[in-house]
Order: sequence, then C-alpha cells, then structure tokens
Amino acid sequence: MIVEMRQGATQEQIDAVIERAHKYGFKVQLNIGTDKVVVAILGSDTGRVSTEVFAVLPGVESVTRIMRPYKLASREFKKEPTLVHVGDIVIGGPKVVVMAGPCAIESREQLFATAEHVLKVGASIVRGGAFKPRTSPFSFQGLGQEGVELLSELRREFGVPVISEVTDPHLLDDMVDHVDILQIGARNMQNYALLRAVGQSGKPCLLKRGLAATITEWLQAADYLLEAGGGQVILCERGIRTFETSTRFTLDISSVGVIKRVSHLPVIVDPSHAAGHYELVPTLARAAVAAGADGLLIEVHPDPTNALSDGLQSLTFSDFERLMGELKQIAQAIGRSI
Amino acid sequence: MIVEMRQGATQEQIDAVIERAHKYGFKVQLNIGTDKVVVAILGSDTGRVSTEVFAVLPGVESVTRIMRPYKLASREFKKEPTLVHVGDIVIGGPKVVVMAGPCAIESREQLFATAEHVLKVGASIVRGGAFKPRTSPFSFQGLGQEGVELLSELRREFGVPVISEVTDPHLLDDMVDHVDILQIGARNMQNYALLRAVGQSGKPCLLKRGLAATITEWLQAADYLLEAGGGQVILCERGIRTFETSTRFTLDISSVGVIKRVSHLPVIVDPSHAAGHYELVPTLARAAVAAGADGLLIEVHPDPTNALSDGLQSLTFSDFERLMGELKQIAQAIGRSI
Amino acid sequence: MIVEMRQGATQEQIDAVIERAHKYGFKVQLNIGTDKVVVAILGSDTGRVSTEVFAVLPGVESVTRIMRPYKLASREFKKEPTLVHVGDIVIGGPKVVVMAGPCAIESREQLFATAEHVLKVGASIVRGGAFKPRTSPFSFQGLGQEGVELLSELRREFGVPVISEVTDPHLLDDMVDHVDILQIGARNMQNYALLRAVGQSGKPCLLKRGLAATITEWLQAADYLLEAGGGQVILCERGIRTFETSTRFTLDISSVGVIKRVSHLPVIVDPSHAAGHYELVPTLARAAVAAGADGLLIEVHPDPTNALSDGLQSLTFSDFERLMGELKQIAQAIGRSI
Amino acid sequence: MIVEMRQGATQEQIDAVIERAHKYGFKVQLNIGTDKVVVAILGSDTGRVSTEVFAVLPGVESVTRIMRPYKLASREFKKEPTLVHVGDIVIGGPKVVVMAGPCAIESREQLFATAEHVLKVGASIVRGGAFKPRTSPFSFQGLGQEGVELLSELRREFGVPVISEVTDPHLLDDMVDHVDILQIGARNMQNYALLRAVGQSGKPCLLKRGLAATITEWLQAADYLLEAGGGQVILCERGIRTFETSTRFTLDISSVGVIKRVSHLPVIVDPSHAAGHYELVPTLARAAVAAGADGLLIEVHPDPTNALSDGLQSLTFSDFERLMGELKQIAQAIGRSI
Repeated sequence: MIVEMRQGATQEQIDAVIERAHKYGFKVQLNIGTDKVVVAILGSDTGRVSTEVFAVLPGVESVTRIMRPYKLASREFKKEPTLVHVGDIVIGGPKVVVMAGPCAIESREQLFATAEHVLKVGASIVRGGAFKPRTSPFSFQGLGQEGVELLSELRREFGVPVISEVTDPHLLDDMVDHVDILQIGARNMQNYALLRAVGQSGKPCLLKRGLAATITEWLQAADYLLEAGGGQVILCERGIRTFETSTRFTLDISSVGVIKRVSHLPVIVDPSHAAGHYELVPTLARAAVAAGADGLLIEVHPDPTNALSDGLQSLTFSDFERLMGELKQIAQAIGRSI
Repeated sequence: MIVEMRQGATQEQIDAVIERAHKYGFKVQLNIGTDKVVVAILGSDTGRVSTEVFAVLPGVESVTRIMRPYKLASREFKKEPTLVHVGDIVIGGPKVVVMAGPCAIESREQLFATAEHVLKVGASIVRGGAFKPRTSPFSFQGLGQEGVELLSELRREFGVPVISEVTDPHLLDDMVDHVDILQIGARNMQNYALLRAVGQSGKPCLLKRGLAATITEWLQAADYLLEAGGGQVILCERGIRTFETSTRFTLDISSVGVIKRVSHLPVIVDPSHAAGHYELVPTLARAAVAAGADGLLIEVHPDPTNALSDGLQSLTFSDFERLMGELKQIAQAIGRSI
Repeated sequence: MIVEMRQGATQEQIDAVIERAHKYGFKVQLNIGTDKVVVAILGSDTGRVSTEVFAVLPGVESVTRIMRPYKLASREFKKEPTLVHVGDIVIGGPKVVVMAGPCAIESREQLFATAEHVLKVGASIVRGGAFKPRTSPFSFQGLGQEGVELLSELRREFGVPVISEVTDPHLLDDMVDHVDILQIGARNMQNYALLRAVGQSGKPCLLKRGLAATITEWLQAADYLLEAGGGQVILCERGIRTFETSTRFTLDISSVGVIKRVSHLPVIVDPSHAAGHYELVPTLARAAVAAGADGLLIEVHPDPTNALSDGLQSLTFSDFERLMGELKQIAQAIGRSI
Repeated sequence: MIVEMRQGATQEQIDAVIERAHKYGFKVQLNIGTDKVVVAILGSDTGRVSTEVFAVLPGVESVTRIMRPYKLASREFKKEPTLVHVGDIVIGGPKVVVMAGPCAIESREQLFATAEHVLKVGASIVRGGAFKPRTSPFSFQGLGQEGVELLSELRREFGVPVISEVTDPHLLDDMVDHVDILQIGARNMQNYALLRAVGQSGKPCLLKRGLAATITEWLQAADYLLEAGGGQVILCERGIRTFETSTRFTLDISSVGVIKRVSHLPVIVDPSHAAGHYELVPTLARAAVAAGADGLLIEVHPDPTNALSDGLQSLTFSDFERLMGELKQIAQAIGRSI
C-alpha cells in the first residue's frame, strides 16, 4: 500500500502511519519527495487490510492499494488454472461447456423435453430454476422444492449434471443432494450469509457477477466461497448495469480476458440475461466463445411465448440448435471444442 | 401498456396480442397509424404484469409500460404520505429525524459513549451495526448477537429507539425484540427471502437503495415489504455506483424529490456511505436536508482513527456537533425542525 | 408518441394535447382507461419531434416515444444495408475490413514501416492520427498538418486508403484531399459544427460512439452526417464509460447486434481504445469478429514502449500478425473473410 | 507515480523503469518487498506525465498515479480561491450568484421580459442561448448571431452581464465583444480546439462538466483553459450520465465538495439540465446552495409550454420567484447571501 502524506505533514503524523503499519506486521519504506512524503507499506498480506486503516490517520492525503484486495481467487495465490469437475465434465479445460435449459422449471414435461433437446445438440449440463428471485413480488416465483425434485429425477434418468440457483442459506440442505452445481445469482453476489453457507457445502458453485460489481469485488466474493472451503468455483459474467437501455444489461466481454489474467478460476458467460432478447443471444454467445470463455449458460424453452419467466430472452429449440452449430465452428477456429 | 407492432405485422399477430391482453383481464384499444399498428392495453393492474408477456409475441416491435411496475409503494395507490412511528418519533412529518451512531458496535463503552453524545446534540435514534456485511471475508464482521444485546440494553437504559441491520432472515427472531427499526442494507435490497421475512415481522423497516438499483426497482423492493404486511417502510438513499471515483458512491440527491412525487413513503439520506470520507459528509448532509429528506443516517465514532469499520467516513463527536448546528439552521430555513 | 394524462386530468388539458398534435400534423387516438386517459399520437414523422413538446403541457404525466428519434440512420428509413466504398474496398459487405496503424503519426519511418507490415499481414486500410485530442494539455498533440501530408504520401506510394481523425471543422479543407475516410472521435460525437462540416464534405466518414452516448444518440449523431449530405457513414464501437476500471472503457459488444437490427449502416469495432492494454486487445478483436462486426480499427506500433501516444494499447508487429491469423480463422467460421 | 513490478521481474526490467524516470528528470526510490519490487517515482511534475509511459515497459504490473494529472486547476498549484470578476459581480466570494434566463433566445420580447423578471427577483447575470447544440438535427438550433446581438443590446440597456454558449472556435470573434462569460457546454468539454480558443480570448468562462467526465478529467479540461491564458474559469456541475432514468441526468452534488477540496476554482450548479423537469429544479437548487455552490445557472421562460427548447425543465416567472425566496433563506442559514 502506498500512503501519500499531505504537503506539510508533520513528523508525528508520518510516525503514526509507520507505527500502524508495524502493528499489522508490515514493513515500511519512506520516499521523501520534494513536495511530499510517500510511505510504501510492504508485505505479502497487505491485500487483506482495508486502505481506510491508513486513510483515516491525520496528515494522510491518499492511500493506494498495490496488492489486490482479493487473495484466494488470485493467480498470484495459485498459479495453475482451477479445473472444476462435475461428474465427467471439466470446466476450465479445453472444452467449452454449454449449460442450457429453461429459466424457470414449470413442469416435468417442460423440463424434460428441454433437457432432451439441449443434450442432443451438444449441451453438457442442464440448468433449471426452482427458486426464482423476481424483481416484482407479483411475478411467478418458481416451483420451489417441487422444482428441485424434478431436477433430481432428471439427473438420475438422464445421467447428466444439473445446475440450479440457491437464494437462501436455509434452503441449502434441501438442494445440496439434488443438484450438481449451486448457482449464486447476481443479486446475491454480496449476500455473505449465502456465500458462506454455499462455500461450506463443498459443492461446485457458479458465482454470477453482481450487476454493479467490479471485477475486484466479484473476486472478493469468490474469496468468501474459497475461504469457507469451496474450492470448486466457476465465475459467470452476465452483464453489468450501465446507461445503455437497448439491452437488458451490458455484457462486459472484456471481463473474460481480465479474469484469465488475474485469477485461476474458470469463467463462463450468460448471454441470455445480458441480452434480454432472444435475437441478440446468438451474437453474444458467439462473442463469448471467441473471447475465450470456458462455457456458456443459455436459456432455452420449448415455447418461449408462453414461458412463465424470461420468455423474451429464451431460445427456441431450433434457434438453440442453429446456435450450437455456429459455436462449434468458432470453438474449433480457436483450437477448442464444444 | 403500449404494444408497438412491426411494420407489416399480420392480422393474426395483432389478434394474438389482443387475445393475451384479454386473458389477463385487460381492455384493448387499437391505434392504426400510417406505418404501423399500436395496441394500447388498459387496466389499473397492468403494472403487475411484465412487458415481456407481450414483447415475446411474434410481430411485436416494442412494449412500453405506462403504469409503473410497483403498486403498493406508489402515490397512486395511497395518496396521503405514510408516517412511520417509532415510539414518540414520527418519520415523514415536519421534523427531520437524525439517526446516528457507530458503523459497527465494537464495545459497550464505544456504543454508549457515542449514543450519549449524539442524543445530547439532537439525534433522535441510535444506529449501530451488529451483523456487518463486508466486501472482504478478512474484514471485521461485527459483534453479532452480542452487539444486538448491547443495543437492547441501550434502548432500555436511554429510552431511545435503535436501528440495526439484519442480513439473514434467520437472524430475525433474535433481533426483532431488541431493535426498533430493522435495516435492510444496499447489498440486500433484492434479497427477497430477507424482504419477505422482514415484511412479515410487521416492524418498522429502513430499506436502503441498492447500489445499482433504479428508483423503480427500489420501490418494487418496497412492494415486497408492503405486500408481506409491513406498512412502516422508510426509504434510504445512500448513493449509487457510477464512473466517478472521488467519492465512494454518487449520492443521487434527486431521488429525494422523485420519491416525494411518486411514492407515499418517507425518504431519508445516508451521507456517510455516499461520501466515504468524513470531510464530505457535512456537505451531503446539508444538501439532503435542503432537498427535503425526512431524516439522516450518519456514522459517528468516538475515535474514528481506531474504528474497526468505516472509520474514514465517521464523524468525530465535535464534527457531528458542529454539523447538527448547521442542519438546524437549514431545517428552519425550509420550515422544518431537527 | 404516447401521452399519459394524470389521474383527474381535465377535458381542457386533454384538448390542449390534441390541439398541439394537430398543429404538428399528427393524428390522434384517445384511449380512455379506467384510471386515466392515454392519447396516442400517430404519424410517420413523430420521431422528429421531442417528447417535451407534450410533456410540458399541464395535466400530462408522461410521454413515451414509440418512433425512434433518429430517422435517416434507421432501418425503417432504408431497408438495404449501406455499403461504404473506399477505393476497391467495401465496408459492410462479406469481408471484415481491418484498419490498422499507429495511434499518432510520429515520423515518416514509423508510419511507413507500420503500414508496410499491417498491409502485408492482411489489413486493408491504414490508420494514423495527425491531430490528436488529448485529455491533458501537457501531452503530445500530434504532428498536425505534417502528419496529414505523410498520410497523403503514403496512400500515393502504397495505393491504399487511409483514415485519420478530424477535430475541428476548419481543418477539414486541409485534410479532405489527403485522406479517404474522415474519423470523428468519441469526444466529438456531439460536436455538431464538426458533424455538419464532415457531412457536407461528402467523404466517407467513421463516427465513433461517444463514451456516454446511448445507441440512440449515436444514431442521432449519424443523422447529422446523413442529413448534411454524407451517405457514407461507418459506425465504430469503442467502449463506453462504466464503473469498471480494469479496462479503459467497457466494450459494449452487444451494440454490434443492436445496430444490425435497427440501422442500415455498417459497424466496426475499435478494440484498442476499449481495452486500453495490449494484452486484452486480441480477446476483444476476436469477440468483435464473432459478433458480426464489419471491421476493426487496431493500433499497431513498431516500438510500443517508445510510442508518444497510447503505447500501452498498441500491438507490436508480431502480436498483430498472430492476431490476424486468429481472426482469419474466426471470420471463416462464421462464413466471412478478412 | 508508483510502479509495481511483476513477481520475478528481472533487474534489467527494473533498470529500464529507472532509466526512463531519469530521462523525464524524476527521482527514483526502490522499495524491495518480499514478493515484488515497487519503484516510487518522485518529482513535483509527475502529474504531467501519463502513467502509460511506465506501464508499457516489460515487467511492469501496474502504475499508480499519486500526483493528480491536472496542475493549474489544483489547489496545490494555487492555494487561495480564485475569484472571477464580471463587472461588479464576484463569483467565488460570499455571495451566491444566480444566472438565469431562457434556454434558447427566441425573440427580443422573450429575452427582455425574462431578463427583467429574473433581475427583479434577485438574479445577477442573464443567460440566453444563441447557438444551441441539439441532439437531433431536426430540432430548433437557436437564432445564432441574431441572438448574440440581442444579448449585446440587453447588456447595454440593463447594464447587466450576460452569459452564452460558444460551440465553435470560429464563432468566437463574433461573440467575444457581446457577452461577458463564454459558456462551454457539456458536450464540448473535451473539444480541445474550442477550449484553447476560449482560453486565449482571456474572457471569463464557464466550463460545464462533460456528462461522462470524472472530476479529474473536468479539471484537466480546465487546465486547457488556464494554460491558454484564461485565468477566470468557473466550473459548472450539471449532472452526469448514470443508469437512473427518472431524471435527465444524475446531479453529482458531491462534486461541489470535492472541487472545494482539490481546486481553487469557483463551482456553480445547473439544476435545470440535471433534473430535466421543472418540478425537480427547486429541490436541486436548494441542495446546491446548501452544499456550498458559488452560484446557480437556471432556465426560466415566460411561457414554458410554448418554449422552442427545454421547456420542460424551465421555470415560470412565478416558480422562479418562489424559488429565489427559498434560496435566500438557505443562503442565510449557511452564512452567505444571494
């Protein structure tokens, strides 16, 4: 951390900074410039301490972090890429893993028909929402536990892994034996009670980026999961909130490249929530594969015009099939497969 | 809701829109322009239905909402302003209510000394965090239940209401008898499990605006509380996330005026989290009172340089006292009191 | 346009809205709901009129635009895609057109060496900045007219089109005969004096998206160019400003798909300015081609570590060559060529 | 500037950083941590150099600026507040200066009637737009030179200073003798040709914040003016672009406090453009005065429902009069006057 003292800061103020650094076990090096004094605070653990600890001291002008404030999710902590294993499937390896299915599970027929189709054309994992966080209390809130049981039946019958969102730490016990990947939604990215509970479960988990979260905060949320014991974390970019309104969110495609630089965790992309409209989903899905995403999370519905949730951004069976054909070509062009 | 059909939309496509509107019990009026057909969908309850329900139909170009998507929190639903009663104190009336205290409760001494001071100089309610949601898992997470009990002791001893944040629906039972206002933090604004539980408790509740939440979404979150049975909701503006980095968040001072136009709920301002720096807190607090906020939520600490949380944005006792003097003048200038 | 009257609006207020609509030559249709009256204002030219014209009238609650506020740039105005012809090169056709070269022209040697390399490995057009708009007055501001003359010499010698930014309408006369495409930078997207002058020149022009411009505003800026007489407009997405700081800007990759839906103009992507760092440029360039961009604008420098401007985001010759190899594969995968 | 080397950076790479710093005349201090080397680059002029100059070198992980990148506008460069003198009026002193008038000058009658009213109730300077930058080419673009001459007549007749926007450096000659303050609009904040020309005129100038400009970039734009010779610069906050759509822009009220800390220039607020709606203008104006703004820029129109530009955000005469009464109370409450 770099502590810039104000012009004319007293020796006593500088000493107070040094003393505090020593209290945390950090080393200190003074840089005495012509205008002002700069205190460099050194140590491999400075990323764990808030910049405020120094910014609050009298005579301090600014504090700048050099170590990133996340640790366990960083590439400096763990050099080799993390591979997340779900049954035979590996997320983070050469294969681009497609997870597809309905936004919300509406019935056995709807879920099973969708699963059958998406698996046939190349998806590896089936998604389906049972507990749905909805912006309005008047919207369909999901089938709840009944949906979880349908997923459980599906994975037994099809022998395929399933992913579903968990919205409350106290629902975890009911879900943990029935799904293969626990999904934490964007609105819960900083629901720390939930992060801890999911981390402690030890299950593979997919952490969506919060809609106003920086990449740094996203990785700090991943630190919660990793610290609680869950090593099998998949990150999922799903668009951030910006001033642009022609799409539901703005897919931050750059985050795929940034994550690959700074973290060891695999990162996938959800083009459906970012686009908010089925016509734009293929564009974003293609871009994500070309950018190097390790997978995709795509909403598919047998009859989007009658979907109970997110029909507008769901692909039909035939749209999904055509898209999978395109994605296979792109994956091949960059030396991967789907 | 206004459904714009594409140029060349077929009669069959138009009929499908009409049929769906009728299914929801809405009335329909056709507007046949020179270029395209526009279907107006009318009814006092259209705000409850997602625009997607129509946008997903073939031949539809766009769907525009006219009724706002929140209902119970709207001024159209309830014309008179809601007054929230906490003991003798009324939030939403002529008096500007100041809630002040430490970000996190650190000890009995710290909490009680702060309470004594802020009450002496004009605060009406004491704040103190027991369960702290922190961006990093390595930061101080609050005293937890011990903090709640200190608050409980404080209110008995001082005869003053207290407010504290609840972060998990399952902590509610332990808190509900010990605090007077349940606070829902910005990161939990769309934690619907929590909203429902707090609403069902029937307690007065303070709902902070999410850092990427539009005013509309904020009022939809209030609808969750109101629908669950909690009529005593206070809104709290605390800054939104923007590209500007010289403050921790960007205080959206306009939201005070917007809320007054569209909602019946009282709205207060938290200048501490928005500013992120004690030197800017008084500026924002003064602006908030002048803009017509019904109250303030301010962090005060006996010794900010040694605070375990948010010391940088906490006021000292003397800073707070000076600020209260200024605020009283401004409140008087606009015909209110503190 | 849809005018929503307030609850209880008087007949006189409704009549005033109708009268104003008639004054503009629009047709009107009344929708009388249970709660409120909604006036639909119809006509193919309503997009040209500001919503304020009605919003300002007494008794009006809100005004919602249905016709988009841009006209000449819209696909409704012109159904077939616009092809921009620059010499033999066509932008907007099946070939993905790569424009590459140094951010700022520094010398004849630097410009010519870069041009020779980028053309050899597949670029079609050479870029080079002569007049550089810089955030700080203390930064290198470009070679000015000397740079323009170097470009002029380059195109004669190499027989290749060149593109360069124009920053002031009164520099146009000096540039118009020396460059093939006039570039309007992001900071000048709403510099209307410049837009008009460039439009009147009749030259092909590349219009960068403003860093806080919505897609709608971007197309309104294109309307300025098209209205002034310039039909040969290329749009260029280069990232928007958001809260994320790990990249210089946030590339809005979705805009490529949105533009294709709503406009007839070709759209290319500038990955260099969006990324701000050479390591991320290839990721974004690959994503752009896969998303369907009609071209790329990429900064290349013989020695980025000694560049006078934007060295950090410039590719070396070998990086650019490797990237071009990857892009050719991706273009082929989606049925295009480079 | 603080240069963080990558883990395992070679001595040669560190030496290259040091050499480059020396080339710029800066001093260097090495901080050798356990994990990595950090190079502090010291000198009072480091703010003038881009961080890229070091970030582009091999082995560099990150570069962090400590000196702010603006210089002439900073409080470190000039300690005492700048007072801008326009006739007898002082901007930046104890008096809060109100500038009011129509958005666009439409006629002699409209301008003069508005001026007479706003001066009567306490405004000190008359505003009026002659050259209007409009988002759409189909909107009213102002009276142009005819408007400038009306302003010139007004100031002679009323003996009052006037302010008007200049949109093109080559219009300056026609305006400079007729107006007292040259206004640079938000969309032109980074139109450097314009900034230089206005700075060279030596006239008092009002610089609006760009709608996506950070406070730092705003002050860098001020540096262009100050460097070109114009010392009399007034900053004007007018709202930034965010995701919130209930107001036209989001007024960043905090910027008033931030500017006071980091710059010596006076800062005023334009509540009209930020709000976009007349009902919200008084709220924001009151907040601005309470926050410590040195003045206000307010749009007033004799008949907003028939205004040719921005009628929705213009106050009527009676609304403005009532607001001035409120503002005087608030100014008094904080020890200032209007």
